Amino acid sequence: MNIFLVGEAATHAEKLASRLTCGAAIVPLPREAAHAADHDGRIGPHDVVVSLRFSRPPGATPAFRLLHVPGAGLDGIDMSSVPPGATVCNVFEHEIPIAEYVTLAMLEWQIRLRDLAARFTPRSWSDLYRSRPPHAELYGKTLLLIGLGRIGRAIATRARAFGMRVLAVDGYAQPPAGLVDRVFAPHELGEALPAAEFVVICCPLTEDTRGMFHAGTLARMRRDAVLINVSRAEIARERDLYEALRDKVIAGAILDVWYRYPKGADDDVEPASLPFLDLPNVIATPHTSAWTVDLPWRRYGLIAANIDRLARGEALSNVVRPPGR
Amino acid sequence: MNIFLVGEAATHAEKLASRLTCGAAIVPLPREAAHAADHDGRIGPHDVVVSLRFSRPPGATPAFRLLHVPGAGLDGIDMSSVPPGATVCNVFEHEIPIAEYVTLAMLEWQIRLRDLAARFTPRSWSDLYRSRPPHAELYGKTLLLIGLGRIGRAIATRARAFGMRVLAVDGYAQPPAGLVDRVFAPHELGEALPAAEFVVICCPLTEDTRGMFHAGTLARMRRDAVLINVSRAEIARERDLYEALRDKVIAGAILDVWYRYPKGADDDVEPASLPFLDLPNVIATPHTSAWTVDLPWRRYGLIAANIDRLARGEALSNVVRPPGR
Repeated sequence: MNIFLVGEAATHAEKLASRLTCGAAIVPLPREAAHAADHDGRIGPHDVVVSLRFSRPPGATPAFRLLHVPGAGLDGIDMSSVPPGATVCNVFEHEIPIAEYVTLAMLEWQIRLRDLAARFTPRSWSDLYRSRPPHAELYGKTLLLIGLGRIGRAIATRARAFGMRVLAVDGYAQPPAGLVDRVFAPHELGEALPAAEFVVICCPLTEDTRGMFHAGTLARMRRDAVLINVSRAEIARERDLYEALRDKVIAGAILDVWYRYPKGADDDVEPASLPFLDLPNVIATPHTSAWTVDLPWRRYGLIAANIDRLARGEALSNVVRPPGR
Repeated sequence: MNIFLVGEAATHAEKLASRLTCGAAIVPLPREAAHAADHDGRIGPHDVVVSLRFSRPPGATPAFRLLHVPGAGLDGIDMSSVPPGATVCNVFEHEIPIAEYVTLAMLEWQIRLRDLAARFTPRSWSDLYRSRPPHAELYGKTLLLIGLGRIGRAIATRARAFGMRVLAVDGYAQPPAGLVDRVFAPHELGEALPAAEFVVICCPLTEDTRGMFHAGTLARMRRDAVLINVSRAEIARERDLYEALRDKVIAGAILDVWYRYPKGADDDVEPASLPFLDLPNVIATPHTSAWTVDLPWRRYGLIAANIDRLARGEALSNVVRPPGR
C-alpha cells in the first residue's frame, strides 16, 4: 500500500510517518495532482490519497481505496470524481483551537490583561495599586452560540466550566443533557439575542445564515454585548456590522474572519471595504483561530490511525462517504 | 438590629442594602472604628459589624452578635478582641476571578491574541494570511497547581474543560474524584515540576512556602514552562526568579503579586528591586487578578444572606469562629 500526500498534505509527511504503524510507503505528489491525471499511473487500487482537493475529468478517475481529506471541509472534493469503490474520510479537531480562541476572546474582553500590563511600570505601581479599576468576570454571564455543531459544543463545554449560562440557536442540534440551558430554533433568534452578553457565530455559511446579522438583528442585541465571529464574515452584513460597532449599537466585536481574502501568492486585498481595524472596540485577528502547531499533529495522527485500520481490515472512523455509493 | 460597615466596607452599603431583606439599619463608620473605641457606644449586643480589620485594647471590647469579614483573610482580625458571644464569618468568591485570570494568562500565552491583533492591518492582511504562523493550544498540556484550596480547585475545574492534565502539590487536599490527575505531597515538588508546561502558585504564604521557588526548584521546571503567581510574591525568591527568567531557565512568567507594596496614600515604592517589568517574557499585572466589579456584589450578597439568617435565627454559613469559644 502507498499513501500519496498531495500538495500541502506533503508538508506533513513526517507527522504521518511518526504515527503510522502499518509500514505503508508515503509518497509526496505536487499540488497539481489534485486535479490533473499526470501522476495517476502511480496510484493503484489498494492505495490511499490524502488531499484537501480532488477532481478529475469525467471517466479519468484512477482506482484507489481511500481518499482521506486532512480537514473538515469537503468543498474541495468533487465526489463524482472519487472512484465508486473508495471510502472518503475527513478529520475535525479544529473545534479545540477555535473554542480556546473564543474563550480567550471573552476573557480578554472582560479582564483586559494586556491593557493592565501595558499600564504597569515601576513608576506607576504605587498609584495603580491604590486606584486599581475593577474589571469584569465571565461567571454568571450569558453566552449565545449561533450554531451548536462540533465548534459550538466545544465552546459550550468550556463556557460551562466558567459558570456561564449557555444558550444556542440551532435548527437540528440535540445536545447532551446539561451542556446548554436552552436551544432556540432559528426563527427564535430575535428572542434569544437580547439575553446574551456574548454572541458567537459558529455555524456554517449557508443561504439561510448569510446576512443573518443585519441592522435589525444587531439592534436586538444588548448594548453591552460583544459579537465574536469565527465562522464566515458574510454571516454578518458588512456595512450593518460596521455601523453597529461605530455607533455603539453593540459594545464590540472580536473578528477572526473577513470579507476579502487574497486569491493567490501575489494578490493584495484589504480584509474589508470598511475600516473595521480602526474601530477601538474591535479586536481583529487574521483568520488564525484554528491555526495551531498542534492541529496538524492531531489530524495526521488520526489519519495514520485510520490508515492502520484500513491495513488491518477494520472499520474506518470519520467516514463521510462509504464505498459502493 | 444595626449593621455597622467600617471603613472600606461602608463604600458597599448600597450593595448590602439591595440584597438585605430583614430591614436592619445600615450604618457607616469611619476607618478608625476598626481599632478605636470612639464609636462603640453606638454598637449594641444584637448588632453586626462588617469590617476587614478589628482590634480593641484589652477589656475594651463592645458586645455584638456577628463580625462579618467581607473577605477571606483573617489577618486583620484580632480574635482576642472579638466578644466571646459573637460569631465571626468570612466570604470567599475571589477564587472565581482568580481562576478566570489564570485561564486567560495561559490562553494568552499560547495564542497571543493581542500580538496577532497588533500585527493585523489592512496593508499586512494578504501577506499575514498567506504566512500565518501557528500558535499553541492548552489542550493536552499539563498544569501543576501549587496548592489545591478553593483557588486551585476553581482553576482545576476550568483547566479540565480545556482537556489539560492537572497535577497538584498539596499536603492536605482531598479533591473530588476526577478533578485532578494526581496530588503530590509537598516533599514531592521536585518530582512534579518537570511534568508541567504551566505551574500556578495558588497556595498561602507560610514559613513552609516562603522561598519554595528558588534556583534549585526553578531548574527542575521545563525550559518551555511558564510560572504564574497569583498568591504572594515571596513564595518565589526574587533574585532567583528574576535570573531564571532573564537566563531562560524557564520560558516566562505571568505575575500578579509583588515584593513591595505602597503602605499608605503617599508611599511610593517600586514593585520589586529587580527589573522584572523589563523582561520580554514576563506579563505583569498590578495585583488585580481578583479585582472585579462583580466580586463585591457577590460578597455583599452573601453577607446580606447571612445577616438575614441571623435575623431569622437560622444557622449561619462561612463561620470561622462560633460564639462561646
